[in-house]
Amino acid sequence: MIHGKNIIGFNLSSQGSTTFQTFSPLTLEEMPELFVQATTGELEEAVNKSASAYAEYKNKSGKERADFLRLIAEEIELLGDNLIRRACAETGLPEGRITGERGRTVNQLRMFANVLEDGYWVEATIDPALPDRKPLPRADIRKMLRPVGPVVVFTASNFPLAFSTAGGDTASALAAGNPVIVKAHPYHAGTNEMVAGAIVRAAHKSNMPDGVFSSLNASDFSVGQGLILHSKVKSVAFTGSFTGGKSLYNLAQKREDPIPVFAEMGSVNPVLLLPGKIEENVKELSATIASSINLGAGQFCTNPGVLIALKGAETESFKRELVVNIQKLLPETMLHKNISASFEQKTKEFFDNRVVDKLAESESEVAEMKGQPVVATVKGRDFVANPALADEIFGPFSLLIECDGEDELLKVVDSFSGQLTASVFCTSEDVQNYKSSITTIQEVVGRLIFNGVPTGVEVGYAMQHGGPYPASTDGRFTSVGVDAVKRFVRPVSFQDAPDEYLPDELKDTNPLGIWRRVDGELSKEPVKR
Amino acid sequence: MIHGKNIIGFNLSSQGSTTFQTFSPLTLEEMPELFVQATTGELEEAVNKSASAYAEYKNKSGKERADFLRLIAEEIELLGDNLIRRACAETGLPEGRITGERGRTVNQLRMFANVLEDGYWVEATIDPALPDRKPLPRADIRKMLRPVGPVVVFTASNFPLAFSTAGGDTASALAAGNPVIVKAHPYHAGTNEMVAGAIVRAAHKSNMPDGVFSSLNASDFSVGQGLILHSKVKSVAFTGSFTGGKSLYNLAQKREDPIPVFAEMGSVNPVLLLPGKIEENVKELSATIASSINLGAGQFCTNPGVLIALKGAETESFKRELVVNIQKLLPETMLHKNISASFEQKTKEFFDNRVVDKLAESESEVAEMKGQPVVATVKGRDFVANPALADEIFGPFSLLIECDGEDELLKVVDSFSGQLTASVFCTSEDVQNYKSSITTIQEVVGRLIFNGVPTGVEVGYAMQHGGPYPASTDGRFTSVGVDAVKRFVRPVSFQDAPDEYLPDELKDTNPLGIWRRVDGELSKEPVKR
Repeated sequence: MIHGKNIIGFNLSSQGSTTFQTFSPLTLEEMPELFVQATTGELEEAVNKSASAYAEYKNKSGKERADFLRLIAEEIELLGDNLIRRACAETGLPEGRITGERGRTVNQLRMFANVLEDGYWVEATIDPALPDRKPLPRADIRKMLRPVGPVVVFTASNFPLAFSTAGGDTASALAAGNPVIVKAHPYHAGTNEMVAGAIVRAAHKSNMPDGVFSSLNASDFSVGQGLILHSKVKSVAFTGSFTGGKSLYNLAQKREDPIPVFAEMGSVNPVLLLPGKIEENVKELSATIASSINLGAGQFCTNPGVLIALKGAETESFKRELVVNIQKLLPETMLHKNISASFEQKTKEFFDNRVVDKLAESESEVAEMKGQPVVATVKGRDFVANPALADEIFGPFSLLIECDGEDELLKVVDSFSGQLTASVFCTSEDVQNYKSSITTIQEVVGRLIFNGVPTGVEVGYAMQHGGPYPASTDGRFTSVGVDAVKRFVRPVSFQDAPDEYLPDELKDTNPLGIWRRVDGELSKEPVKR
Repeated sequence: MIHGKNIIGFNLSSQGSTTFQTFSPLTLEEMPELFVQATTGELEEAVNKSASAYAEYKNKSGKERADFLRLIAEEIELLGDNLIRRACAETGLPEGRITGERGRTVNQLRMFANVLEDGYWVEATIDPALPDRKPLPRADIRKMLRPVGPVVVFTASNFPLAFSTAGGDTASALAAGNPVIVKAHPYHAGTNEMVAGAIVRAAHKSNMPDGVFSSLNASDFSVGQGLILHSKVKSVAFTGSFTGGKSLYNLAQKREDPIPVFAEMGSVNPVLLLPGKIEENVKELSATIASSINLGAGQFCTNPGVLIALKGAETESFKRELVVNIQKLLPETMLHKNISASFEQKTKEFFDNRVVDKLAESESEVAEMKGQPVVATVKGRDFVANPALADEIFGPFSLLIECDGEDELLKVVDSFSGQLTASVFCTSEDVQNYKSSITTIQEVVGRLIFNGVPTGVEVGYAMQHGGPYPASTDGRFTSVGVDAVKRFVRPVSFQDAPDEYLPDELKDTNPLGIWRRVDGELSKEPVKR
């Protein structure tokens, strides 16, 4: 059933001699199918097809692209349990999680389809001509967001569906009018192949051009690097580690024409635990935090990797409860032996630092490939003096920073670099008392959460998933939610263009009936020349 | 009247020993006043003040910032003829042009003030909570654009007012809620000082924090480089040459946390002259083109540096008329001896290339500091084979490319890298006949103009001034018009935030009465929890 080939537009291709297999964290064995790594020639073919497809795809209407996205969702659903089984086998994630992720994936595709039909997202803007203006007449100028060209999507190890082949990056890039070339993650190449097949079937059915989607296999960096350096590639999306994201970003800067790399690189997502809130319900709070630390074996970019509290009776009681809750946690299966080995290694090295202490760890037996939940503590001043303690450890790990007074708390929150999120557990009184700490942490995050854990990223209009560097390479954009589509477009102005040349979104009669800014006022009315 | 000092927040400072003078292209002499280059200590002080001011300034309401911008406009107007005289003396630009530029500058400030009061620009977005949603409830999530921190503005040599001290970059950065540090252009340091003084007076009067604006002098690159590398600087705006912009961009990439550099680096702005339109009125067309080439001595980033036509009777008649019009042009004063020397050198070197011929030049006597208008010709295939011919020559120069048939035309338009603009002179029939050439050139430009010259950049809602690289470092943003404010912000989401913590733009009652996206629908209504 799995062919292991590269998918280049509407064709399958396996010209290379390098093959690899995926590993199952459940059986602790390699899976049988061989995946053929793409050759330089196949890469070239995929990009050329993508560029040719762009010339046609960019002019498909929003409605046509919406139909394509909905068909992709249908085709993914038609894969049924086979897809769920394969994704579970290749990632070790539980069936419920994968089923939920599939739901999220198809919902995202349908959400972008709705956004396309609504049409507001293109930011259609019209400044009508003022022929009698003095001293000079004003021309008719109209602007909208237009696609940029072939987009390369690197799929994420920790979300085999929702941040992968047909995930948010692919869905938003296709929605925006760009062909996509997926560089499949070698950890779940089989899952990728199934979803890629669904996309290709949808492309066929909806009459999309050959090359609107391709998927290349690779177990090393060469294919990804070749894609980023290809002159016909115009934008890149990535979700993964800082090291991975930064190296792709640096590579894109070396091009004669640097291109955007939207790398979402994760963070430690500081959680402020303010005294009033701890006092209110210490048991519930500590259980919530412990469970968030261990959710998905801590393999989320929004994992709460740092907890911050003020020294005092409340925090002592929180620690006691947290110890109990952490000890009770059941170690979960990690995604890959490399990831579990790295987690083990990094937590071990972490405790080599004398300023940190182990507060608690899970007391369950830790089988191979399982991540043992562990929480450390450090004094506020030691944390500030040791910036490396703020580095992310990918897995079920968190560091509790105990601050000696409000000044030290402020220094601690001021020491963070960019983060995807920060959470504040607080009462109304806490907000008043610690406002400067809250506004300080707000400056470095993409999302500020009150009385909630950072895990769980809603897919909607108001979501910002992306923080200042190094959480993301570009914190001005989000990789989750409706506005993710804004990453793969640029504004184009048309001056005195004949109506028949203009895209429908900008035509005089407003044939699509969309919201437009006309002379700065929102309107759905036609405009006159 | 000119003190020559650095303006660091509300203080004047001249601790350095390096001084320089500005040069007047009118008298061909150095002007008498000494400007003191900022020291490393002064740079540090300016940035620290800026960062401190940010903590206060970012929380000023849109109304308060609007009042500040309007006061700046008033204070600039109060400078009266002194400002006009100084700017003319330091740039050689005629009084009418400088007066017009002042009008544009104060209009821009007032435009951003209106935009702030309108409030739509922050993209306020609210996804209300859905506590009963299955399988999981949805949190209340609200998003808006927030400022990023201190912005460094490099002022432009060719627009001493509208792209300089209180120009579009400064106005939009201040509008967005960021303090600004100007690195003054050494060619018009006196003009800068007068306008900077106006900004500081406005800041005093409107009770803005010390450090909301600073201006540093420098005749070399050290101050600009130091600013870009300073960890508290968060964004950079620049208008000037490709070499200058690219070096600032590269520097910003070397930081531990790379920051955006919005460099608008100019281009050759290809002009397609299609046969139907030439035939319609060759005299008017050639006069229009000649005049655009020589406007402001060709010292515009939108100067028409390349003309493209099809070989044939129409183009022959166009060439004859163009020769007459170019010969009649009066050479205008260039901005600086360096710029005029570079123009002379580059046009000379250009004609060393055997594939190009001189078509026409101004027959007027060329005095020192004047730019002699000149037009060259080249065959389409030779242009494609010599990519360096597409490089910008800053001044009254243009290259006419003659294409042998439609295929060659398509190859020529396909050979361009990013451009600020392209113009198409065409009849309705031309649009039909040459549609693929027009849509091809559209892919690489920020603004596509029909039957108009590229010079003259309207300041409005629909303007896109910024094209794909290398016209700009980031073609997803504009440096002119309302949307220029989007360069200096990033989205921040607030999840389940108490109403009293939220910015006014996101509060339940919508106290500012602004347009918001609520569950994806535009609305001015309050929201309920």
